Amino acid sequence: MKPLDELKARLLEVDDINGAAALLRWDQTTFMPPGGSPARGRQTATLSRLAHEKFTDAAVGRLLDQLERETAALPPGHDDAALVRVTRRLYEQSVRIPGALVSEFNEHAATIYQAWTVARPANDFATMRPLLEKTLELSRRQANCFPGYDSIADPLIDLYDYGMKAASVQALFTALRARLVPIVRAITSRAPADGACLEQYAPADQQLAFGLEVIRAYGFDFERGRQDLTHHPFMTKFSLGDIRITTRVRENDLTDALFSTLHECGHALYEQGIRTEFEGTPLAGGTSSGIHESQSRLWENLVGRSRGFWEHFYPRLQGAFPSQLGKVELDTFYRAINKVERSLIRVDADEVTYNLHVMLRFDLELDLLEGRLAVKDLARVWRERFEADFGIPVPDDRNGVLQDVHWYSGPIGGVFQGYTLGNVMSAQFHDAAVAAHPGIPAQITKGEFGTLRGWLRENLYQHGMKITAAEAIRGATGSDMSIEPYMNYLWRKYQPLYGLEERERTALGVS
Amino acid sequence: MKPLDELKARLLEVDDINGAAALLRWDQTTFMPPGGSPARGRQTATLSRLAHEKFTDAAVGRLLDQLERETAALPPGHDDAALVRVTRRLYEQSVRIPGALVSEFNEHAATIYQAWTVARPANDFATMRPLLEKTLELSRRQANCFPGYDSIADPLIDLYDYGMKAASVQALFTALRARLVPIVRAITSRAPADGACLEQYAPADQQLAFGLEVIRAYGFDFERGRQDLTHHPFMTKFSLGDIRITTRVRENDLTDALFSTLHECGHALYEQGIRTEFEGTPLAGGTSSGIHESQSRLWENLVGRSRGFWEHFYPRLQGAFPSQLGKVELDTFYRAINKVERSLIRVDADEVTYNLHVMLRFDLELDLLEGRLAVKDLARVWRERFEADFGIPVPDDRNGVLQDVHWYSGPIGGVFQGYTLGNVMSAQFHDAAVAAHPGIPAQITKGEFGTLRGWLRENLYQHGMKITAAEAIRGATGSDMSIEPYMNYLWRKYQPLYGLEERERTALGVS
Repeated sequence: MKPLDELKARLLEVDDINGAAALLRWDQTTFMPPGGSPARGRQTATLSRLAHEKFTDAAVGRLLDQLERETAALPPGHDDAALVRVTRRLYEQSVRIPGALVSEFNEHAATIYQAWTVARPANDFATMRPLLEKTLELSRRQANCFPGYDSIADPLIDLYDYGMKAASVQALFTALRARLVPIVRAITSRAPADGACLEQYAPADQQLAFGLEVIRAYGFDFERGRQDLTHHPFMTKFSLGDIRITTRVRENDLTDALFSTLHECGHALYEQGIRTEFEGTPLAGGTSSGIHESQSRLWENLVGRSRGFWEHFYPRLQGAFPSQLGKVELDTFYRAINKVERSLIRVDADEVTYNLHVMLRFDLELDLLEGRLAVKDLARVWRERFEADFGIPVPDDRNGVLQDVHWYSGPIGGVFQGYTLGNVMSAQFHDAAVAAHPGIPAQITKGEFGTLRGWLRENLYQHGMKITAAEAIRGATGSDMSIEPYMNYLWRKYQPLYGLEERERTALGVS
Repeated sequence: MKPLDELKARLLEVDDINGAAALLRWDQTTFMPPGGSPARGRQTATLSRLAHEKFTDAAVGRLLDQLERETAALPPGHDDAALVRVTRRLYEQSVRIPGALVSEFNEHAATIYQAWTVARPANDFATMRPLLEKTLELSRRQANCFPGYDSIADPLIDLYDYGMKAASVQALFTALRARLVPIVRAITSRAPADGACLEQYAPADQQLAFGLEVIRAYGFDFERGRQDLTHHPFMTKFSLGDIRITTRVRENDLTDALFSTLHECGHALYEQGIRTEFEGTPLAGGTSSGIHESQSRLWENLVGRSRGFWEHFYPRLQGAFPSQLGKVELDTFYRAINKVERSLIRVDADEVTYNLHVMLRFDLELDLLEGRLAVKDLARVWRERFEADFGIPVPDDRNGVLQDVHWYSGPIGGVFQGYTLGNVMSAQFHDAAVAAHPGIPAQITKGEFGTLRGWLRENLYQHGMKITAAEAIRGATGSDMSIEPYMNYLWRKYQPLYGLEERERTALGVS
């Protein structure tokens, strides 16, 4: 067998095992009965360990050595060169992490996740504390497989947002925070928007049906995906032909399920758009958390919460919920879904305050990882920091430190920054698409998304992991990551919604 | 590590992989979108190959050698002795089958299954023909891993019904056929029962809800299981804490989903009753196809189609479907669900004609495996044989050779005899339970099943694979497998239903 074919065969086997492990996790969070939990943790751990063993086999290293020589003369954009380059990077990461740690972490993740699904509704942080201490210890052990870092968070960040470090994230967050806090203050000094029209009973089935109608229009391919219910929505992939999203429904909230569906659909459109030739290789995945989130937020917010979108869909939503919305004006509804307020829950937060939630988590993660904060003090410190940042008290842990699934199903560190990187880049991608195709906003008012999705597929999605996040943003937009387009987007949208005055523009640092 | 602990750790790893492979299959037949199919076949094949590799590792053989010496002095009923003995038997079977064949068969099974889900409704045997030829070839190759057989079907039968051979199955079938054919003739010479009350529209949700109510009463543990929809119902297990069943609904048939649910629930009660100490070892499974089917058929037919059962449940079914059944008498309904007629579909067949369907398949499998019949002639020969056996024409292949999932998802040979072995033994287990607890029939008329389930759990279920099928039937009933109890059961039930005369008893060979 030729070395490239042998490498691909080995990668395909790893991909098969990883696909099965992803199914084990999907099932655990959608359909699995509680009695399945102990074995499920074991099964996931075993498969993760096997995938890790297979991927870190010395033979893979030797094949990469040989293939690096063979592909040295190829242009960097050649698929084979990219495959060897990306596989090498992931290989060097993986060989540093012992299989036993991979297995232990995965088994622990299944255990703590199951405990969290009970503890969060019960508001029971005490039960989670020892489990979370274990998570922190495992996260540190994982980071310490990569000595020589500046911050212990760096190796974890590198796993999810290759090329970023704690310091670069902090620099970006500091700049962003300086601009967001005054805007939040300016907006919240105005009369609050009225969200009452959303807080009405709406049957789950109808809510789900409407969400499916929208993502069908977005271009979600139901031949290669589906949606199910879960606690904490996510997207997952078993192969390029089977990419699934999950949502949850609150029957007293008309749009909660919908925006969750649109968010996860954004992730799925990215993965469904990857070139099928990459199937079974590391290239067949999103390139970073930040880029992934840029797409979920673009389709959720820049499209799904835009006025143009609702010009098309609001009559349809009214048709689905005539008794609830029949007499509610489009503008009232539009203001409600874009209500800015200081609130408790990250995933429910509006676009303006959202990033402050992320920054809180990122900072607490750094404090935990770097030993300045102990898990036993985490719930208290969360409440203190939250009150300082948001000016509202945290009534209980279920609406505080227990709210996000992340620490209760994966590492502490490495993940949260991706959400804000995504917000920032979502505006850059959107602006670039509209610059290339000025007709996009008008198409959206007709419920047509093909041009936008096509541009994103062409310029971003198809490449998968073949390009890095930095290459992706530069390639598609011509610029490096920058907060200006995002700040301009927020100003353009929220200035009229909240009657911000033109003279505030400069004071708020919007160019 | 002590050898026994090392063996158990290795078996646990194999079990984890097998559990994940089972989930891949369950998902494929319940929720997977069509685009997932190609990768799913590969994933299942990879995991099956890995499980096979791990199980047939030479180290397992060495551990078994050592443990056989260590456990030689233990009584055969000791758990450790049984674990070593059963693992040895399965090990010797598995080492004969090359991993590549396991992998190829699994990948092919996923492919042909997917094709069948399209071909059956399309009545398209031509598309299936080359795939089925491949199945036959793979089945033969598998059998030929065990040279020295009398019939090429023997090694396949041994995999599912350890201890049986084609000749012993044929001897049993010949004796049974000689008794069944006259009974079928006697019954069908009477006025046919009227099944019209079942052929009414009933919404899927309500049908499913009623089935769930019944299996809850049976004792199905929903903390350790669930039910979903599929094409061809089955039971599967991911661990002793997660045992799932599937069903399907016909909205123009009031009881089709129900009896399918009761059937699969019987399988699940067996597996849910296995001692949890066996988790992760080969002992944690049903001991043979025949014993498994004895339980599905016991709960479906001997309990679920009995008059006593419906004394309790019929008023409830009438409550669920008042417009359909409100004016239908219990006796009319009871006759309808036990209507005997020559019909096309095995899984819809009544208790009396059912075994004739099995015998047809068993004989055709033998002809295929032994080379007397080619796949290209199979659809035609099916029709000819069916008409000879049942006296009615086969209108199309979807109601003929395409009807069962088995040949389109697994080997040709080894499986079908289990259904009839199960029918035969179901009566033996039922008689023994009632002999031990004469109050069981009266309890069933009150919707109470705890004594019956408890007796079965105590005498059969808990042992799992620790005992062979032969040991199971003898241990629980005091007798070897015998057709007499089954024939007596059929006579007791159908004699009054069809007004058979006492003088026919001897002529029909009922003692």
